[in-house]
Amino acid sequence: MRTQVAIVGAGPSGLLLGQLLHKAGISNVIVERQSADYVLGRIRAGVLEQIAVDLMDECGVGERMHTEGLVHAGIELLFKGARHRVDFPGLTGGKTVMVYGQTEVTRDLMHARAAAALPTYYEVGDTVRLHGFDGTSPRVTFRKDGREEEIVCDFIAGCDGYHGVSRASVPRDAIREYEKVYPFGWLGLLADVPPVFHELIYANTDRGFALCSMRSPTRSRYYVQVPLTDKVEEWSDDAFWQELRLRLDPEARERLVTGASIEKSIAPLRSFVAEPMRFGRLFLAGDAAHIVPPTGAKGLNLAASDVKYLSDGLVEHYKERSSAGLDHYSDRALRRVWKAERFSWWFTSLMHKFPGEGPIAQKLQEAELDYLVHSQAASASLAENYVGLPL
Amino acid sequence: MRTQVAIVGAGPSGLLLGQLLHKAGISNVIVERQSADYVLGRIRAGVLEQIAVDLMDECGVGERMHTEGLVHAGIELLFKGARHRVDFPGLTGGKTVMVYGQTEVTRDLMHARAAAALPTYYEVGDTVRLHGFDGTSPRVTFRKDGREEEIVCDFIAGCDGYHGVSRASVPRDAIREYEKVYPFGWLGLLADVPPVFHELIYANTDRGFALCSMRSPTRSRYYVQVPLTDKVEEWSDDAFWQELRLRLDPEARERLVTGASIEKSIAPLRSFVAEPMRFGRLFLAGDAAHIVPPTGAKGLNLAASDVKYLSDGLVEHYKERSSAGLDHYSDRALRRVWKAERFSWWFTSLMHKFPGEGPIAQKLQEAELDYLVHSQAASASLAENYVGLPL
Repeated sequence: MRTQVAIVGAGPSGLLLGQLLHKAGISNVIVERQSADYVLGRIRAGVLEQIAVDLMDECGVGERMHTEGLVHAGIELLFKGARHRVDFPGLTGGKTVMVYGQTEVTRDLMHARAAAALPTYYEVGDTVRLHGFDGTSPRVTFRKDGREEEIVCDFIAGCDGYHGVSRASVPRDAIREYEKVYPFGWLGLLADVPPVFHELIYANTDRGFALCSMRSPTRSRYYVQVPLTDKVEEWSDDAFWQELRLRLDPEARERLVTGASIEKSIAPLRSFVAEPMRFGRLFLAGDAAHIVPPTGAKGLNLAASDVKYLSDGLVEHYKERSSAGLDHYSDRALRRVWKAERFSWWFTSLMHKFPGEGPIAQKLQEAELDYLVHSQAASASLAENYVGLPL
Repeated sequence: MRTQVAIVGAGPSGLLLGQLLHKAGISNVIVERQSADYVLGRIRAGVLEQIAVDLMDECGVGERMHTEGLVHAGIELLFKGARHRVDFPGLTGGKTVMVYGQTEVTRDLMHARAAAALPTYYEVGDTVRLHGFDGTSPRVTFRKDGREEEIVCDFIAGCDGYHGVSRASVPRDAIREYEKVYPFGWLGLLADVPPVFHELIYANTDRGFALCSMRSPTRSRYYVQVPLTDKVEEWSDDAFWQELRLRLDPEARERLVTGASIEKSIAPLRSFVAEPMRFGRLFLAGDAAHIVPPTGAKGLNLAASDVKYLSDGLVEHYKERSSAGLDHYSDRALRRVWKAERFSWWFTSLMHKFPGEGPIAQKLQEAELDYLVHSQAASASLAENYVGLPL
């Protein structure tokens, strides 16, 4: 078959790109290794910057998000046993974030794609291959239901995540990778209990980091920092709640409502960037090109800005016959990527306990948090990054 | 002999404290291990915050500083080969710093002390002992010119630096020490050549950090980051200038004037804090209680704020018969100390090349610098720390 843009991956990046291109009258086909249900089953971040909210609206899929999503005007930083609020609108000229699970974003985009009957091939497994993206006529091949399929296209968008085939298809000497792996993981628990607080609580404690997050007024998502050697099977729900409680302030400890877990898992933390993000007619977007540690919730939002730059570039190419947007895609995207990598690394470093670092590390973190919550400039710097730097 | 406050150490902390107490009519005696010339020969920092300038004025010793000192309204950050200015007054509501060597501060204070004929014992070597500071009648003993001397006093001020006897006199279980040693040193060179630029240049390069500083319009102080294993004898002046040149931007490289070194040395970098800063009637101030790495020039300025808090406390004690200032001395001083420790650690981490860290470290530093110089909030945070947080 023939299309203008072949998109590899039906996660939020690929679906968002497909929808934006469709709105602009640019044909696209998505191929996805897994089933739609599998994609929807992955529990991921839940905080959208305004740019991500705007893109959902631009795609015409923002309705449920505006009804069910929770607008958050701040976060709480908990350290030395006390909580301090960072007020986003007051520090950023009115900006906020939207708490709305990545799963819900994906679901809304899938529905819209299905309603528009846009071609999407799920469950193609490991059969996807990228061809000829260094020339003028790239192709994507895959097997579906035992048949060999081929998409002939103008461009390929690699939206298939860190482990996807897109980045792996680039010759090793054409790509430079930067990586940092953190010496701890996040043990996350999802439960149908009301959140302990109506905003997110980020906790720095001498037992390690904790995060109180949520998906809705009746569904909570909590995390505690754990050693990388821990196995999720070793953590009963009770043990999780007990450890979380030890990392909260007295008031939150009192208010915490516990319950059976719907999902529980341990995620490693990684900083990763591949440069460049364009290889001839192949463009990488989202996790295919970069990973941030989850502190500060930048992963999905970076995918959204990549997709925005890329769809703008493609629209420019087709509508204005200008290659400027595509030519600048990698540089523009990477500049924002690195700033978000910097922020995510910084916020991770500030809030976690690093094994092997002496007691001065905890004191320096507390001094920085103490400075941060009392300095207008430092609070504003955190806030402007959290709500999202300008495109 | 009998005095109200015995001061151990005739560096800038001890001399400043002595002068402030004298102005308030509180008697004090200083004992110093070394000779006055030795103290003056130590080349140290050269950037004064407004609080340090104000204290010099309060002591009545600010005249030469205001004539010869250089008011600096910003610094230049050099990274990825280009310089970016951080404008202090514009970011802090009008604040600046004063470039005036620690040696000159010490000289002015020594002259004032001599003019007021305040008792000062130099060259007492390692004979100083502190007694009874856990009781109501502390004493300081020492040998001078072969005679055993004793100062009976109300309070002892330990202003004798990191290696001094004051902190070492405190029982180990009464003190908690926090320390971090950096895996590199600063090779510094002093020369009678005009500075390459009228403001300080802090350089982040893939060869390591460099700093272009100055003492006057005709005397420059330059530094390059070197491995801790380097010996100063291995660095000829030529080799120094060549390495410095490689770490500058083209314009600065062009303008750099080289010349014979007056002084050349390698200094290690350390973060260190001892808590608390009061033990009965013994108060630690300055380097005796804390060390910062020199990036950001906080060492002398922290000593100045300690001395300000301590002299205020002592004046309150004698004039208002209130112990509040002395009782809060340690907490007040440490709160500011930790913020300066945080800033100095942060600025050091941002600007230096850390051996063993992968290439992502350099990219994260460049992303942070890129963010910093383009964000009003982040620039203001750097500026407010550099000119000095409020007392």
